[in-house]
Amino acid sequence: MPRDESKKTDQKATLQLASASIDLDRTRRCGFPEVIYGEGKTAETIAQIASELRSRGERVLATRIDLAKANEISQLLPEMMYDSTARTLRIGDDLPDAQAKGNVVVISAGTSDLPVAEEAHQTLLWMGARVSMVHDVGVAGPHRLPERLAEFENADALVVVAGMEGALPSVVGGYVACPIFAVPTSVGYGANLGGIAALLSMLNSCASNVAVVNIDAGFKGGYLAGLVATQKHDSMQGQDAPAH
Amino acid sequence: MPRDESKKTDQKATLQLASASIDLDRTRRCGFPEVIYGEGKTAETIAQIASELRSRGERVLATRIDLAKANEISQLLPEMMYDSTARTLRIGDDLPDAQAKGNVVVISAGTSDLPVAEEAHQTLLWMGARVSMVHDVGVAGPHRLPERLAEFENADALVVVAGMEGALPSVVGGYVACPIFAVPTSVGYGANLGGIAALLSMLNSCASNVAVVNIDAGFKGGYLAGLVATQKHDSMQGQDAPAH
Amino acid sequence: MPRDESKKTDQKATLQLASASIDLDRTRRCGFPEVIYGEGKTAETIAQIASELRSRGERVLATRIDLAKANEISQLLPEMMYDSTARTLRIGDDLPDAQAKGNVVVISAGTSDLPVAEEAHQTLLWMGARVSMVHDVGVAGPHRLPERLAEFENADALVVVAGMEGALPSVVGGYVACPIFAVPTSVGYGANLGGIAALLSMLNSCASNVAVVNIDAGFKGGYLAGLVATQKHDSMQGQDAPAH
Amino acid sequence: MPRDESKKTDQKATLQLASASIDLDRTRRCGFPEVIYGEGKTAETIAQIASELRSRGERVLATRIDLAKANEISQLLPEMMYDSTARTLRIGDDLPDAQAKGNVVVISAGTSDLPVAEEAHQTLLWMGARVSMVHDVGVAGPHRLPERLAEFENADALVVVAGMEGALPSVVGGYVACPIFAVPTSVGYGANLGGIAALLSMLNSCASNVAVVNIDAGFKGGYLAGLVATQKHDSMQGQDAPAH
Amino acid sequence: MPRDESKKTDQKATLQLASASIDLDRTRRCGFPEVIYGEGKTAETIAQIASELRSRGERVLATRIDLAKANEISQLLPEMMYDSTARTLRIGDDLPDAQAKGNVVVISAGTSDLPVAEEAHQTLLWMGARVSMVHDVGVAGPHRLPERLAEFENADALVVVAGMEGALPSVVGGYVACPIFAVPTSVGYGANLGGIAALLSMLNSCASNVAVVNIDAGFKGGYLAGLVATQKHDSMQGQDAPAH
Amino acid sequence: MPRDESKKTDQKATLQLASASIDLDRTRRCGFPEVIYGEGKTAETIAQIASELRSRGERVLATRIDLAKANEISQLLPEMMYDSTARTLRIGDDLPDAQAKGNVVVISAGTSDLPVAEEAHQTLLWMGARVSMVHDVGVAGPHRLPERLAEFENADALVVVAGMEGALPSVVGGYVACPIFAVPTSVGYGANLGGIAALLSMLNSCASNVAVVNIDAGFKGGYLAGLVATQKHDSMQGQDAPAH
Amino acid sequence: MPRDESKKTDQKATLQLASASIDLDRTRRCGFPEVIYGEGKTAETIAQIASELRSRGERVLATRIDLAKANEISQLLPEMMYDSTARTLRIGDDLPDAQAKGNVVVISAGTSDLPVAEEAHQTLLWMGARVSMVHDVGVAGPHRLPERLAEFENADALVVVAGMEGALPSVVGGYVACPIFAVPTSVGYGANLGGIAALLSMLNSCASNVAVVNIDAGFKGGYLAGLVATQKHDSMQGQDAPAH
Amino acid sequence: MPRDESKKTDQKATLQLASASIDLDRTRRCGFPEVIYGEGKTAETIAQIASELRSRGERVLATRIDLAKANEISQLLPEMMYDSTARTLRIGDDLPDAQAKGNVVVISAGTSDLPVAEEAHQTLLWMGARVSMVHDVGVAGPHRLPERLAEFENADALVVVAGMEGALPSVVGGYVACPIFAVPTSVGYGANLGGIAALLSMLNSCASNVAVVNIDAGFKGGYLAGLVATQKHDSMQGQDAPAH
Repeated sequence: MPRDESKKTDQKATLQLASASIDLDRTRRCGFPEVIYGEGKTAETIAQIASELRSRGERVLATRIDLAKANEISQLLPEMMYDSTARTLRIGDDLPDAQAKGNVVVISAGTSDLPVAEEAHQTLLWMGARVSMVHDVGVAGPHRLPERLAEFENADALVVVAGMEGALPSVVGGYVACPIFAVPTSVGYGANLGGIAALLSMLNSCASNVAVVNIDAGFKGGYLAGLVATQKHDSMQGQDAPAH
Repeated sequence: MPRDESKKTDQKATLQLASASIDLDRTRRCGFPEVIYGEGKTAETIAQIASELRSRGERVLATRIDLAKANEISQLLPEMMYDSTARTLRIGDDLPDAQAKGNVVVISAGTSDLPVAEEAHQTLLWMGARVSMVHDVGVAGPHRLPERLAEFENADALVVVAGMEGALPSVVGGYVACPIFAVPTSVGYGANLGGIAALLSMLNSCASNVAVVNIDAGFKGGYLAGLVATQKHDSMQGQDAPAH
Repeated sequence: MPRDESKKTDQKATLQLASASIDLDRTRRCGFPEVIYGEGKTAETIAQIASELRSRGERVLATRIDLAKANEISQLLPEMMYDSTARTLRIGDDLPDAQAKGNVVVISAGTSDLPVAEEAHQTLLWMGARVSMVHDVGVAGPHRLPERLAEFENADALVVVAGMEGALPSVVGGYVACPIFAVPTSVGYGANLGGIAALLSMLNSCASNVAVVNIDAGFKGGYLAGLVATQKHDSMQGQDAPAH
Repeated sequence: MPRDESKKTDQKATLQLASASIDLDRTRRCGFPEVIYGEGKTAETIAQIASELRSRGERVLATRIDLAKANEISQLLPEMMYDSTARTLRIGDDLPDAQAKGNVVVISAGTSDLPVAEEAHQTLLWMGARVSMVHDVGVAGPHRLPERLAEFENADALVVVAGMEGALPSVVGGYVACPIFAVPTSVGYGANLGGIAALLSMLNSCASNVAVVNIDAGFKGGYLAGLVATQKHDSMQGQDAPAH
Repeated sequence: MPRDESKKTDQKATLQLASASIDLDRTRRCGFPEVIYGEGKTAETIAQIASELRSRGERVLATRIDLAKANEISQLLPEMMYDSTARTLRIGDDLPDAQAKGNVVVISAGTSDLPVAEEAHQTLLWMGARVSMVHDVGVAGPHRLPERLAEFENADALVVVAGMEGALPSVVGGYVACPIFAVPTSVGYGANLGGIAALLSMLNSCASNVAVVNIDAGFKGGYLAGLVATQKHDSMQGQDAPAH
Repeated sequence: MPRDESKKTDQKATLQLASASIDLDRTRRCGFPEVIYGEGKTAETIAQIASELRSRGERVLATRIDLAKANEISQLLPEMMYDSTARTLRIGDDLPDAQAKGNVVVISAGTSDLPVAEEAHQTLLWMGARVSMVHDVGVAGPHRLPERLAEFENADALVVVAGMEGALPSVVGGYVACPIFAVPTSVGYGANLGGIAALLSMLNSCASNVAVVNIDAGFKGGYLAGLVATQKHDSMQGQDAPAH
Repeated sequence: MPRDESKKTDQKATLQLASASIDLDRTRRCGFPEVIYGEGKTAETIAQIASELRSRGERVLATRIDLAKANEISQLLPEMMYDSTARTLRIGDDLPDAQAKGNVVVISAGTSDLPVAEEAHQTLLWMGARVSMVHDVGVAGPHRLPERLAEFENADALVVVAGMEGALPSVVGGYVACPIFAVPTSVGYGANLGGIAALLSMLNSCASNVAVVNIDAGFKGGYLAGLVATQKHDSMQGQDAPAH
Repeated sequence: MPRDESKKTDQKATLQLASASIDLDRTRRCGFPEVIYGEGKTAETIAQIASELRSRGERVLATRIDLAKANEISQLLPEMMYDSTARTLRIGDDLPDAQAKGNVVVISAGTSDLPVAEEAHQTLLWMGARVSMVHDVGVAGPHRLPERLAEFENADALVVVAGMEGALPSVVGGYVACPIFAVPTSVGYGANLGGIAALLSMLNSCASNVAVVNIDAGFKGGYLAGLVATQKHDSMQGQDAPAH
């Protein structure tokens, strides 16, 4: 996708705040603005970055925000909407389904993987991608996944979220042609090693179409699937650059 | 299974050779005689232990024997038969199928897992168990396993052998009611870590009926499945002890 | 064990709840219904799944339930009985010993391994298996185990629970002919690495009849031993399928 | 991408050879035929699978073939072309650039990463994707990457191959909008841990558009990038399925 | 730098307190007095060591002091100044910039790395080095670092602090000629492994001028850079020993 | 040391309590009675075991007791004396120095290693060994250890306790002829890995006289040194068995 | 044991050779001369060090010498005697049993552990200790160890050598009062991790009298046991220093 | 150190060869030209890079060259001089001692660490630094290091090379005021883990002046020490840039 040179301006690419610097050039370069990683940032800092981005017309997403911090932030910036499962904050409405781009499905193995799957979900909504969810289809019930094949076999990209043995992406991989972004979760105990077992399993997948992101990295899994789906959509529309 | 007290004798339980000691009481105690672990033993030592066991009427199994050592041993003890895939030596004929006990199936994921699967196979033959093989049904081809369900759904116990992501036992686990003994193999590369990835995957299996043995431990997987199947068979016959 | 075809019905195999899906076909396929893994599920979800299973006549087991959550659940579903050592909830009476099937013994090394051993115990009671307990016979006191040999040498299967160096299954393995399901626990400190030391020790056991499950996986150890014992019992009775 | 139902036929999905089974349904399901993983397979097996695929009109790719095995295979099947850097065998001509689909760039950090980068290259040629190479632009020379930005900033997908500290994908990630498939290599020594250092670095990338595959998995990196690029191309052409 | 023999005295090199011993000879031997590592020491012990050092005319630095302990200590020893970001206590004024020695720059990748960067900062102030800070220039925004090149390209030594993939020191390394002391932080999650990912990345840096210290070891990074800068400064002044 | 046959009695070797079994034969077999490992045992259990041991005339030691549990226990069994640094409980007076046996020195590297060193200390007092302490002589101050050489060069055995890089035992090893029992502590951070760094360092010690025990295992280090010293003392007295 | 001041001389403590330095003061300080670690040293260097030690009247031991290097060395220094199992070279006759000191037993678990056990054996002979061997008494045969109890229950110290699960030292520990030096071996495969499994097992031993040395460190295990036994012997003789 | 702007030219910064690209701007930016990392490069490639560098008047250093490759290269480029211990190739004469800059000492622990120490040595000679060697002063002989203190206490920077427990840098750190670059080596066995034990030990050093580089990274240790020493030398001469 060619970078949109028309958007190139003289303005400085970085805005220096007291405690952080904001990459103002990112939308031009990478198609989407900066996402605020909430861990280790104060409510004030997060609200300030969000305001700056918002004032430039960007949609805003902040991840890894616990409930207490979310409450603090929404007092500073009431338009931020919190999703307590995904632990994300967003500014910007969901696109109506007809305007949403492409087709991404987020598949998760068990009930405990839900928070990570929902972080991917929120990320995809923020990107303007069309997204649907298929929950609790882990490999222990072998009929569960095929029963729902119709819901995901035509996707542009899949996000597959699983903890424990992390086998779900390998099994899904055998059913579809699109790229799969596998997200290991830290769900499990003992030799799970905080998600390392699922991570290694996914990296060693015998399915050729499985790429992997960090443990519990729902955002990154969603973002990558969203890039594939929205860029494919844009190219079908004869568009070279994301437009939102 | 009650231990067969009638077999208890006064003879000393251990036979001391120059370089090893043989546990002569094992068949009474554990149902099967000692198996010779070939790694780190000379051809002479292996042949000597085999002769002693044979002279006491035991069936003999030696594992982890490379071709060169097998050739040396068969010159010393010609009745030993070598299986070059399993890298095992045996003395004692295969039982005719009608006399073999129980029903064990060894399932393997890929072509490269064959040597480990065959070590399990040879072990089960040595135990007098009825055994069949289902090869190359890894999860990347989702239709391969269900196509062959009839071959293993009635087994007394399964041995499931897989490298790479080690997902096969979890998937098989959802189809059957019997215990599964999962054997991770060192097949793979990179983040496979010499089989650790498959091992961790199997230990974290969401299927309740999956137990695990060491990496590449085809013998142990086969032995455990053989215990389950032959003891169930013996109890159905009203027999308390293995008879071979 | 052949699957009980008479139980096959037209009903859909999966019941979709708001936050989870229940595998309704599992008893037919695997001999026992789904077990509820409590970690990461709300009290409401657990009670709802339990009610659905109960309404279909299944016995119910939920594991990894802390006291607070157990209290919440029992307000929603008073018939659930909590075991605070095992941290399990059950619905369904213990079978009278005469009706219980087979013979499983759960052996544990030290006082601190008790919670894991009790999770195995509760699981076996839920399966309708006959079960007895041998506590605190770790290898540091070499006479403790032989003193109690009569209690476990005739078992159909053993569950052996140990933390620290995890040597107990290897030592027990030399005394018996039946399969042993070894459960490493996270009891210990320092180079114990949260149970990894015991896990590795058990995987490397020189005893041929030792299979291993995940760290602290009392449920899985109990379930596997229960499968071996109840299926052997059923086959002796000329029964092909579990009946409870 | 909807699966091409018109290609659905009655023929059995699996062809059972003596030592392997071939997934004949894969092209319909996944868009591309099976790839032959050469490790642990004999020359005979590889040639046999290749012949079967070829006889069905599929393009053939085999990976992880050393020179000696390649020589054996080309005596059995002379039309197979060997690439000694990539250690791959292929049957099927390169598409003329005008017919090749999409636009993938393979970027590598150092001279020693070349074999892995070339495995990705060969995979992309086999898929019919348009591909170009940017070599030796590791982060130690900070001007090297920007000098060549024009060669990769418009790609549909990137494969970035790096050993040692594995920083290159993170740096590339800041310049582009497309998905990046990062391939860690085992190049390095000491605390490199056979590629684990680069793998962890890539998994923890602060760039949102970086997904990771296994160490030295040039094939998988190429395959995923090829899926993104060819499917985007096909959708622009109003085509739903790959056509080659 | 020759040790200052004139400072050699007859006094005993070690002062024995109740709960600790103080190395009174360290300034002569190593150029700077002992630094108090606060972890695991009581407020009383810290205050006592600080008083003893102060009474001998040394400047005092204590690291790893949480707020509660800092409050306790400042009641015992009010002249100690606390920096709540760096979690350090100091006694002794900052040198005026003109008197400060050499030129060290502390560069950090993200907002969350700030506490570690500030520990380095406080350490350098305590050493009497001239120090400036460059924050939030991680590799995800590739223009951020070059924009600020003028601020650090003439430094005598750099401290580069980064978590996650730890790529920043490698990138900085390509721009400068001076030694870089890389400090990995435990910022991140999942496969970050508490900073191990960043640590391995830095150890494997392809940049020749990057040395590494322990995870979160802001003190040590600052101390080493301070040694390089102040000793170079002293040698330019014709001074052989530090003078403060 | 020959076992004291005169102490052999007919009494059963194991006392079965509700929640634990006590090894009553241990003093005869091993020279010292059981030590109570407090982790995971309730105050009631610990008090009950202590009472039983006391009623048989044994000296009592319990380790890993936090302050809250210690308070509970001393209400049940007031004669137990708590050491809050070592976190141990003891019953039985310290022997007067003249009656204490042998000569053990416990050397520790830093202030933070004190709790582990004190656990060794309490263990040695309980064994009736003569023991002295040398604190805070870590290798960073190279003159500290030689200054105190006279205090430990004539010991029968040394316990050397160190965290961080764990170098102290290697350095001490070069000065003495007696066996050294090295105890790594979990003191440190980052790449310390909870004491693994010190543990590995000690296992790889180039000093021939260094044996290692588990991380933070002050009890075990003290116990082993106590065995060496008291048995040497007893043999000098012409005594074959411990007498206390 | 007080150091023998009478042996103190004016001679320099270190002899500087071209490629190594010899610690000439070690016998005075540590009771025994330097041992030559053969790995990474040339035959010439080893022969030169051995000659220098011999010319000063010391007994000589060199470890980790393969057969080829041993042949080279014995051409340079024919009095060196090679033990091909232990891979050690020695100069100096075995003491007649009556003159040998103390009583050490080396116990090994399996045939493959023999080389490490023999390295301990050779070391003890070199030290002038009385030593006997108990081979192949691993825990899989539970009667083997008690059968031979009389051979080791009166030892001054034990060396226990085991690979695989490393359980033997824990079991032995329950039978004896003396210190045990446990030597893990790299015998095993898969999750054995080159001896790490046995090492961790031994470090976590529930037996209080078990100290551990490095994997395959037969020399160190033997040396420590030899120190305990010979120093106890010397003290019984009223001797303070070793005399050989 | 300010970069030498007078050397800035218009010439392209990168020279693209067939199989590698050369960073021609590095001397201006970083003070020294590129060093050729020999691993994974052919003799032809190395000779070609060396020729290009030489033709531009640069001094040449290539590391990690085995003897066979060195012979090949010296046929192509006879002026390259090989050091078989360091496994390095150089072009350019050693500077006479009087012209060499600064003062670096390379200290190594044992004979087996020599190759890594010599790689550091060769690197320092190539940089034009004054360098001396102190070999075989490991901590097991505590008098060896102090005996040679005069040789290194006045250095501008030290390189300390050690395998096994890696304690030497910590001990040296207590004697000197200058920065220490610690190089762990893979010398050792078992729990040494290929140098990881020494690496962790050095990272956790309690000495404040110890920075660490990768395992066996003699080049990097030498390079960093050389930067410190030569830049200090240049600044004393009133020179801002390296001149060679």
